Amino acid sequence: MPELRVHNFALSLDGYAAGANQSLENPLGVGGLGLHEWAFATRTFHKMEGAPGGDESLDDRFAAQGDAGIGATIMGRNMFGPIRGPWGEENWTGWWGDDPPFHHPVFVLTHHLHEPIIMQGGTTFYFVKDGINAALERAFDAADGKDVRLGGGVATIQQYLRTGLIDEMHLALVPILLGTGERLFDHLDGGPAGYTCVEFVSSPSVAHVRLARDA
Amino acid sequence: MPELRVHNFALSLDGYAAGANQSLENPLGVGGLGLHEWAFATRTFHKMEGAPGGDESLDDRFAAQGDAGIGATIMGRNMFGPIRGPWGEENWTGWWGDDPPFHHPVFVLTHHLHEPIIMQGGTTFYFVKDGINAALERAFDAADGKDVRLGGGVATIQQYLRTGLIDEMHLALVPILLGTGERLFDHLDGGPAGYTCVEFVSSPSVAHVRLARDA
Repeated sequence: MPELRVHNFALSLDGYAAGANQSLENPLGVGGLGLHEWAFATRTFHKMEGAPGGDESLDDRFAAQGDAGIGATIMGRNMFGPIRGPWGEENWTGWWGDDPPFHHPVFVLTHHLHEPIIMQGGTTFYFVKDGINAALERAFDAADGKDVRLGGGVATIQQYLRTGLIDEMHLALVPILLGTGERLFDHLDGGPAGYTCVEFVSSPSVAHVRLARDA
Repeated sequence: MPELRVHNFALSLDGYAAGANQSLENPLGVGGLGLHEWAFATRTFHKMEGAPGGDESLDDRFAAQGDAGIGATIMGRNMFGPIRGPWGEENWTGWWGDDPPFHHPVFVLTHHLHEPIIMQGGTTFYFVKDGINAALERAFDAADGKDVRLGGGVATIQQYLRTGLIDEMHLALVPILLGTGERLFDHLDGGPAGYTCVEFVSSPSVAHVRLARDA
């Protein structure tokens, strides 16, 4: 059965997955970049950016795993861009340039309708107004037997966690303190019950945790 | 200069340092024991309990560090026992039996006066009603040039973190989910500003983080 998977989702020591005040200048919120430096250093990320080199150790194995066997992605609209409310006149097409690193259909959860946006390299952004279950159904259809990756942000993951729809979740624990921002383990009505740690291993900069839904 | 140090303070993935509903049966709250299994497995803990054997690897190095150079301990009264409000008639002398593992003066923060309790092996429990600064001063005096260890619980550590009085803090990140309980990084008025990770290293069961106050 195809699965819904979360990968490379970084948390600070104090539990934040993004800094406060996301904006065009700070897509990950203030201080949020520090959560992802380990990922930027990997060969997988370098390759995605068309750059040579990069770290090939444990962190890279996890970074690469995030693309393996994935046929579609779901994300919240706050991950897609900084615009809130109606889309307005601006022709926003995501943070990722003309050739986004997905190369498959991406389903963006929103309350505001938007035409699909066809990008270079096989990425098309579809906008889903009728909820997380509908988005998941469309993503599984589009993935055609492959798994679906759930991006962020925090609120989107929380929604899927509350319904128990996530099969596997890889968290990257980064030893920094953000002090404020958006917490992954919040608004979960008693917590992400029914998940168990199935892998726990660390590099010098990150502790990797894989959680799987109990059978 | 003698320092105020926190050691072996375990946190779950979702940020909890203790489970909910602390009681005589569950001194660490429901599920809280799971946070400390790594510590129980160490040689240091075995020795403390008068038992042979125990793990001697990385986790043990951290467990042992918690006693090194310590001359006094401070703890909140919820760590001392399950009694809330006035002490009442019961002759509670702590969770640790007749010969507690401290072997030095222990200062218990409380709103309710209590005579000192002299235990075997060099441990005396003193009860401090006039706040965290007074307790720290008395503990430094008693430690006589050695460092002071700050035990728990969560609320006690938060009080000292808010005032920036902690010099060093060792956290043990344990890959379990508690879902509810007491969070360390909470009620901190914007977070534990001014601390930086100075060591990050993992065993198969715990990621150890040492935070030090910025100079």
